[in-house]
Amino acid sequence: MEKKQSFHVAVVGATGAVGQQILNTLENRNFPISKLSLLSSKRSAGTTVVFKNENVTVQEATPESFEGVDIALFSAGGSVSKVLAPEAAARGAIVVDNTSAFRMETDVPLVVPEVNEQDLLAHKGIIANPNCSTIQMVVALEPIRQAYGLKKVIASTYQAVSGAGASAIEELHVQTKTVLEGQPVEPKMLPVKSGEKHYQIAFNAIPQIDVFTENGFTYEEMKMINETKKIMHMPELEVAATCVRLPVVTGHSESVYIEVEKEGVTAEEIRVLLSEAEGIIVQDNPAEQLYPMPFYAAGQNEVFVGRIRKDLNNDKGFHLWIVSDNLLKGAAWNSVQIAERLIKLGLV
Amino acid sequence: MEKKQSFHVAVVGATGAVGQQILNTLENRNFPISKLSLLSSKRSAGTTVVFKNENVTVQEATPESFEGVDIALFSAGGSVSKVLAPEAAARGAIVVDNTSAFRMETDVPLVVPEVNEQDLLAHKGIIANPNCSTIQMVVALEPIRQAYGLKKVIASTYQAVSGAGASAIEELHVQTKTVLEGQPVEPKMLPVKSGEKHYQIAFNAIPQIDVFTENGFTYEEMKMINETKKIMHMPELEVAATCVRLPVVTGHSESVYIEVEKEGVTAEEIRVLLSEAEGIIVQDNPAEQLYPMPFYAAGQNEVFVGRIRKDLNNDKGFHLWIVSDNLLKGAAWNSVQIAERLIKLGLV
Repeated sequence: MEKKQSFHVAVVGATGAVGQQILNTLENRNFPISKLSLLSSKRSAGTTVVFKNENVTVQEATPESFEGVDIALFSAGGSVSKVLAPEAAARGAIVVDNTSAFRMETDVPLVVPEVNEQDLLAHKGIIANPNCSTIQMVVALEPIRQAYGLKKVIASTYQAVSGAGASAIEELHVQTKTVLEGQPVEPKMLPVKSGEKHYQIAFNAIPQIDVFTENGFTYEEMKMINETKKIMHMPELEVAATCVRLPVVTGHSESVYIEVEKEGVTAEEIRVLLSEAEGIIVQDNPAEQLYPMPFYAAGQNEVFVGRIRKDLNNDKGFHLWIVSDNLLKGAAWNSVQIAERLIKLGLV
Repeated sequence: MEKKQSFHVAVVGATGAVGQQILNTLENRNFPISKLSLLSSKRSAGTTVVFKNENVTVQEATPESFEGVDIALFSAGGSVSKVLAPEAAARGAIVVDNTSAFRMETDVPLVVPEVNEQDLLAHKGIIANPNCSTIQMVVALEPIRQAYGLKKVIASTYQAVSGAGASAIEELHVQTKTVLEGQPVEPKMLPVKSGEKHYQIAFNAIPQIDVFTENGFTYEEMKMINETKKIMHMPELEVAATCVRLPVVTGHSESVYIEVEKEGVTAEEIRVLLSEAEGIIVQDNPAEQLYPMPFYAAGQNEVFVGRIRKDLNNDKGFHLWIVSDNLLKGAAWNSVQIAERLIKLGLV
């Protein structure tokens, strides 16, 4: 059988913040598309989106939308994925799902190509794209794990509002303008739209992303903990996270403390190791005030790592500062990258 | 000898961001002042400041300014303190210095009243007020150390621009307005005014506060490390810090991981312990989305603690989220509080 050269691609949630970036990425990567189906909720159906200089009308996503689709990129919320991803898979599409709906299911690979591309081989129709804050962290940690072993990870995040969607970006802008005008703001959206309380994000920091779980950690924190273990195949890895929302539009940052297994590793060795690793750009030179920052990482596909320091008390401890565009490597680019790897591996 | 009832107080740096808060605090506390001398650099001399509804003219600070002064509150930068604090002390004033000039000198007490008030007894004329990010952390950690012992501290900070002075607040406001208008910004001030490079702080996070030291940590990070050990009298304490500047006007936040010595401590025990401790308000109820945030902590003297969770892997590990007004408990209030304790202890 001849290998397929181009593919019928469906994008579900085409009008959202991540959906738009998926379309940009497909276009920039010149992804081999024979047919493009843009799908959405009933509410957004009918919208026209420009792709490669052509107008494409967004259709309401139904089970039948996936007839003949080779690759379906889902980014329309967990409830949509739960209903429609199995329908798409049943019709022969390979689903790359950007929601949390299937991430922890044992027969669903949870993939960051730089880390566990081989897990794609075991897919059963649905592949999950990890949470944004998890992706950028494991890209930075995997080369370290391979070279020196990894025992412990303690992360504190500095997350952008775009992770909560286009309406959160709008809320940040409107609130900021209102504060600068000296007027009181009326928070409506963050930290969790469906939550009882909403707090100002302009000129503030909110230590809640997603709702709380029973152990006092938020779902966002538990995602980072559980997804990291699954992607790195390390159920025994000690991971902790504190996730915080900031008045930043795009670009998540993470202050991460790790402990490796090997003794005597130097910060310079980690710097060299990461600078040679796939998908990473090391920005780490105190003398030149060089370190990653979210504003400057926005729009780029790579994971940026800097402030690499050996702990002053623990020979096996290191501190890292990890930054990436949460809509690109944290979502759209990782999804499209998975699709590219599926093609490369002959799985589609 | 009869105990003095009111005091000649000098405020050095009266026109700065912290100086203004010192005056507010002296007024709000109804501090027993017999005479108030407001001092500044030559540049700001002549400015008129309102204190208790009276206009006070700011004078240029000279060695002679401190004749007859009982208590001198310094907040005009390290170089001013280095020259004038010894002059003030030589003239019989007790100096409470809010700069880093004398903090690590062995014969200078470094004091947070809730933690080590007794160190005031050994003063030799100069008492140092710790760094803002250190103060709020040790207020939260000291009750835990006393009850359960403390072995390890790993802090990641979320610091407001007001820590860099009034001109940094202005820079954040101007930049933010410029970005909202879609214009390019010209950073001039942060992260370090005298540094070669300046970065946008609006909608960004900058992982550099103060200049870098030779070990790759910044001075701000080394201040947190060294000052914490000195204040808590624990040279053996394992402390690490990553300090990050945010687009927040006032209020520093800290994501802090600690390890205690005692086994079997629960998060609820720490919650109860801290809620009974001096100077702390516990805001920690996930069910009600209750946790501290810098925007809401601004203007208050207390240290706010929430997100108290036991680590999922280490029985002795806990995560805390600590927030306080960096200009008040982090600077002005701690300085005035030291002055109040000096009076209470009969040291002035």
